[in-house]
Amino acid sequence: MSEIEKQYPFLMACRRQPTEYTPIWLMRQAGRYLKEYRALREKYSFLEMCKNPELAAQVTLQPIHRFKLDAAIIFSDILIPLEPMGVDFEFAKGEGPVFHHPLRERKDVEKLRIINPEEDVSFLLKAIRIVRKELEGKIPLIGFCGAPFTLASYLIEGGHSRDYILTKGMMYRDRPTWDALMEKISDVLIRYLQAQINAGAQAVQVFDSWVGCLSPRDYKAYVLPYSKKVIKGVGKQVPLIHFATSSSTLLELMKQAGGDVIGVDWRVDIGEAWERLGHNIAIQGNLDPVILFGSADLIGKEAKTILHLVKGRPGHIFNLGHGILPNTPVDHVAALINMVHEYSSR
Amino acid sequence: MSEIEKQYPFLMACRRQPTEYTPIWLMRQAGRYLKEYRALREKYSFLEMCKNPELAAQVTLQPIHRFKLDAAIIFSDILIPLEPMGVDFEFAKGEGPVFHHPLRERKDVEKLRIINPEEDVSFLLKAIRIVRKELEGKIPLIGFCGAPFTLASYLIEGGHSRDYILTKGMMYRDRPTWDALMEKISDVLIRYLQAQINAGAQAVQVFDSWVGCLSPRDYKAYVLPYSKKVIKGVGKQVPLIHFATSSSTLLELMKQAGGDVIGVDWRVDIGEAWERLGHNIAIQGNLDPVILFGSADLIGKEAKTILHLVKGRPGHIFNLGHGILPNTPVDHVAALINMVHEYSSR
Repeated sequence: MSEIEKQYPFLMACRRQPTEYTPIWLMRQAGRYLKEYRALREKYSFLEMCKNPELAAQVTLQPIHRFKLDAAIIFSDILIPLEPMGVDFEFAKGEGPVFHHPLRERKDVEKLRIINPEEDVSFLLKAIRIVRKELEGKIPLIGFCGAPFTLASYLIEGGHSRDYILTKGMMYRDRPTWDALMEKISDVLIRYLQAQINAGAQAVQVFDSWVGCLSPRDYKAYVLPYSKKVIKGVGKQVPLIHFATSSSTLLELMKQAGGDVIGVDWRVDIGEAWERLGHNIAIQGNLDPVILFGSADLIGKEAKTILHLVKGRPGHIFNLGHGILPNTPVDHVAALINMVHEYSSR
Repeated sequence: MSEIEKQYPFLMACRRQPTEYTPIWLMRQAGRYLKEYRALREKYSFLEMCKNPELAAQVTLQPIHRFKLDAAIIFSDILIPLEPMGVDFEFAKGEGPVFHHPLRERKDVEKLRIINPEEDVSFLLKAIRIVRKELEGKIPLIGFCGAPFTLASYLIEGGHSRDYILTKGMMYRDRPTWDALMEKISDVLIRYLQAQINAGAQAVQVFDSWVGCLSPRDYKAYVLPYSKKVIKGVGKQVPLIHFATSSSTLLELMKQAGGDVIGVDWRVDIGEAWERLGHNIAIQGNLDPVILFGSADLIGKEAKTILHLVKGRPGHIFNLGHGILPNTPVDHVAALINMVHEYSSR
């Protein structure tokens, strides 16, 4: 690892190097639970905030001004690269993303463009540059993308799904179209992450948020090769965190797909998960986001339990098991961060 | 086991006795994918069908007339015992259940009635008696209930939930109310299942459909004692299947809670799941319901894989990993049942 990385507990932990305390950041740490975020959201739509570099940078830094976080993550959305691929979607109020023309056939896949990030998502790259400058080297900045399966599921289902019937339907019934789609998304994601790294992202996270709907057999057959392609294609320049939810039976396969760090949700005992993965890979997680709605006592007890389960082994990054929830009490977030630092001090 | 049980491969498998072929039934086998079911639903609401013994019996038998299933399951809903407990809900079109007065406080719990099944759900018990008579001993009949956690989550959230913030909120912040609620639900469920058994149910299944949102620690602390109480309270008269989804990290704890059979979803390799559980308990599962939307070839291949993974060991009941989906092709269901019987013939 580089001399620069050595300054940062978060990057050190990604490389499984000892740190003075366990670093912590929180998925969706820039988000609706912060009143300064909600104030901006009254003036701008979610996508407007993603696409305006100054606003995106400002939102990225909001939690950093409040809390002693060990990393910032650029404010954006996993769906951002899809628009320049030629896909038309919006965030409908209270419903999540809605795609007006869900992708169903080979010809839909053929129409998808391979993006040129420097042109197509220049706002994101500019936001990364602004944040890096504003952070003045205090903490590192994480870039991110959705994993091929999760993005494909949005494209095919046209939004969130409960059963993923259409996505799995394409996998099972039209393998060539599925492969063509996953191939194309993978090519885009490699360029997309590389551009973020070139712009200044010091680590990247790949979110395979919905892959937990698959059996291990299907993950291996239909998904693993593409996640692997993306992770390999991005290269070893910066640490990569490979994250999924409801993925306790996929952990070994996710490791095969790659990443320096595997991110796990709260459904698994983090000690057992790391044991199964082997200790030659770092681990991130895994507090249930709902615990933050409990008392400070409960939060402290759970934080201690997680730190106890990983036994102070180098290579643990503390995080939630999924994104922070909208009504999370802000003072509980501050308490968690301080307790993780305090309890893990070596 | 009794001489009567020995006639039935399904009951034999529940007791881990060798059978001539692997028995199969399908969760929600009486449901919307059948056109004769949809025809009735045009005339009656879902709850009307549950509460009319003749209709419920008719619907229960619909899939039995079509397919060579090894068990029938009484047509009903896990929410049925809640109404006589004093809870007011409806099935809103396309939205699932909606509870008009979600349960939030101790006084809400205190108002809940302990039901007397012979009076309060006499329609269900009558439906069971009709079905037993109509089946003429050809295949056994399964009764069922929701598990305490899953029912509590509906009561507290007021319907389906994504994050279970209110349910976990009560667990974490008001343990006495949570315990009082779980205690009360457990008492009701024991009576509810015993009444079904007395009416003629030859096996019962406990559905803990949403418990997979919990960490193993929370399951152990807040749920396991109550599932255990129900299962113990029901007794050993008939085999009990203990089922949950997204539960791959909870399997060992579910076994501790009890049951003759553990039902697993498709997210876990069934061979590994059984290995972890130990072979002194039977297992049910675990085809992904979406596989039934694939080709007959794919369905056959997956059925073979599952049969291969359990190695023909006595004590496997073939099933889907969750309920059959509404648009499932009926001929694929027939094909699956025949293939499971054929491939497993010993």
